[in-house]
Amino acid sequence: MLLRNIMYLVTMNKRREIIRNAAVLIKENKIADIGEDRDIARKYKGEEVIDASNMVALPGLIQSHTHSPMTLMRGYADDLPLMEWLKEKIWPLEAKLKPRDAYYGSLLANLEMIRFGVTTFADMYPFPEEIFKAVDTSGLRAVISPAIFENINKSSNIKNAKKFLKHKHERIIPSLGPHSTYACTKEELEEVARISEEEKILIHIHAAETKDEIREIKKKYGMRPIEFLDSVGLLNERTLLAHVVWPSKREISLIGKRNSKVVHCPISNMKLASGIAPLPEMKGITVSVGSDGPCSNNNLNVFEEMKITALLHKVNTLDPTMVPANVALEMATINGAVSLGLENEIGSIEVGKRADIILVNFRKPHLTPVYNPISHLVYSCNGEDVDTVIVDGEILLRDGKFTKMNPEKIMNKVEKIKNRLVSTK
Amino acid sequence: MLLRNIMYLVTMNKRREIIRNAAVLIKENKIADIGEDRDIARKYKGEEVIDASNMVALPGLIQSHTHSPMTLMRGYADDLPLMEWLKEKIWPLEAKLKPRDAYYGSLLANLEMIRFGVTTFADMYPFPEEIFKAVDTSGLRAVISPAIFENINKSSNIKNAKKFLKHKHERIIPSLGPHSTYACTKEELEEVARISEEEKILIHIHAAETKDEIREIKKKYGMRPIEFLDSVGLLNERTLLAHVVWPSKREISLIGKRNSKVVHCPISNMKLASGIAPLPEMKGITVSVGSDGPCSNNNLNVFEEMKITALLHKVNTLDPTMVPANVALEMATINGAVSLGLENEIGSIEVGKRADIILVNFRKPHLTPVYNPISHLVYSCNGEDVDTVIVDGEILLRDGKFTKMNPEKIMNKVEKIKNRLVSTK
Repeated sequence: MLLRNIMYLVTMNKRREIIRNAAVLIKENKIADIGEDRDIARKYKGEEVIDASNMVALPGLIQSHTHSPMTLMRGYADDLPLMEWLKEKIWPLEAKLKPRDAYYGSLLANLEMIRFGVTTFADMYPFPEEIFKAVDTSGLRAVISPAIFENINKSSNIKNAKKFLKHKHERIIPSLGPHSTYACTKEELEEVARISEEEKILIHIHAAETKDEIREIKKKYGMRPIEFLDSVGLLNERTLLAHVVWPSKREISLIGKRNSKVVHCPISNMKLASGIAPLPEMKGITVSVGSDGPCSNNNLNVFEEMKITALLHKVNTLDPTMVPANVALEMATINGAVSLGLENEIGSIEVGKRADIILVNFRKPHLTPVYNPISHLVYSCNGEDVDTVIVDGEILLRDGKFTKMNPEKIMNKVEKIKNRLVSTK
Repeated sequence: MLLRNIMYLVTMNKRREIIRNAAVLIKENKIADIGEDRDIARKYKGEEVIDASNMVALPGLIQSHTHSPMTLMRGYADDLPLMEWLKEKIWPLEAKLKPRDAYYGSLLANLEMIRFGVTTFADMYPFPEEIFKAVDTSGLRAVISPAIFENINKSSNIKNAKKFLKHKHERIIPSLGPHSTYACTKEELEEVARISEEEKILIHIHAAETKDEIREIKKKYGMRPIEFLDSVGLLNERTLLAHVVWPSKREISLIGKRNSKVVHCPISNMKLASGIAPLPEMKGITVSVGSDGPCSNNNLNVFEEMKITALLHKVNTLDPTMVPANVALEMATINGAVSLGLENEIGSIEVGKRADIILVNFRKPHLTPVYNPISHLVYSCNGEDVDTVIVDGEILLRDGKFTKMNPEKIMNKVEKIKNRLVSTK
């Protein structure tokens, strides 16, 4: 398959090359060649051609922290104090979820992410088997972490989480999702650390999200959450720390020293009024972006995370040079790949990497004129500008239409689940 | 014309009624009847029917502060210190603009705003005659303020601005746009105040946008910008104050007392690192939203302003109840209408008002399921969910396609202008 006439190819390779009038050759599930269109077209004849005129090609976006089945509760409750929101609204609905609901909720999230140009996501939730099935169906790539948090769901325990690690799949990586320092016991966290070390498994955990959490953990353990994680052996290069809104300077330096990764979730942190993560202080740390669950956002649109990340830290520091567009784009592409341990597979468009590529249609009023494609990707685009999504060499979206999934069926199913969730309360 | 089968009709009337399975009758350029679909359909037979199944109908969005021709410089420069950005990048390009360029730049902005569901905008820029022509062509509604600021453009003086006031147009209201307290002389501002008083003309002005501005005006006049505006008679119920990031408590109370209006521009204020306007303190003041010019945003998408307004003040106050979704929607609809003195004409869907209505397609993965349409409009939608735009009873967008304008021609023209702007520097 040959992508031809690409207006700008944003490679996100080490030199951050941008090639005008480019072409990309895809063989099976990999990127086989890249270059100027006239050169590539001359070399490879007879390939199936996808015309990418007026399109910008870039690595598929990486959504590094979400809870995909929570689409089912999207927009059910907003603008409430955190504990009222959780206890009176979200948790009672969540308690009614059946495995089959989680499957459809995750399928819906997969649909939405494909539409908005996400090609890989990192999920943490109960019902990992259902999420696995959804991702197997959708064609996306995912790191799936069974949530370890028996309060939400009895089967969300370490024993079951361990079972999930047996899965082998071309596009799905099983990992472990101890929910947080406050929702897990010390023993659970220590066991997770041991498994992670022995089996080299990624750990996906919420950390230092709210001021209340800091207070609670300090009271309980005499140290702050990230210090505590370090003390139980859970701060290492495979640790994905979601939020990190309230780290101390010492904790930031600890994260750097251990080469742990941070997922910045600005929209969720703003909507829940958690706070503003000190991103500008996290120099040298790999930071990616995540939408968090669709209840606290309320969508899974990584274009919004990029724009808001670039905006928020400018105003928070009163420095307009903070988080320039290219940095925001790195966070949503190559940094995501590094965070998930997939930097040799995805995150940039380079020969030998997996063919996870999106085409963004720049032939739109709000993307005209074009001085600088990176500026438009971060500051002007919205998710629906995505025209084509390719994951592992397979086309999942073309001309804005789903090629593999039936959105009508899934949306109907989710509306029915919603009716059940609200009617029986 | 009969809009039928509307999933939710969000009226934004005084009681903020939302009608399920609704219909709206449009006669000429006005809303003639509203009600449940079965009642309305029975009453009016033989009307041309627009099927709005799966759509939410709401008043067209109001963009209360922009500089439409600046689309021409969209994405040309970002992430720079303010004065470097203006002096080395924006102003040199702006100096090359010809009237015809401004016409096409504004046409492009009109296209973009139609696509994103804006039906009325308040513009301030030189070249008001060109903007007038663009709006006459596009079918949008606008309040056009010739910028009074001779430094940008010699003809941007009071004499010419006054000439512009002669225009009569069904959808266009001429007003005056003294740029700011620092870009105008005291005498200019006094004359604007006199004309506004005599002819009951709206005044559109930047005020208290940056800390530097506060310092400069205090030094020059011994008072803060909004106090100074009051001292020259420019703070009245027809004054539209854009930004208002750094008002003192006394100035906020002065704005309230004079019944002046505020346009909140959070994205621009974040991108230029101007600061966070104290919106929660502006109780009792009519506040609307604006994108500002597309160079400091970089689009004209009012859906983004709504979401970011709701998010920003939550995190800034660490209070998740701040600016709930319904308030953000008010700012972008009825408050915009009040701010422009058009509350009897637009801003809500009520019998007798102008037919400025948009239909948003909710049959999308990211808008599924639907618990609460207001939540989705603010937190989940993006501009491209807009399916249909009706202004003054005329359909400007249907099924996401422009019915009246030729986007290809305008985008081509603007790309050519861009090439000229950068090539001759």
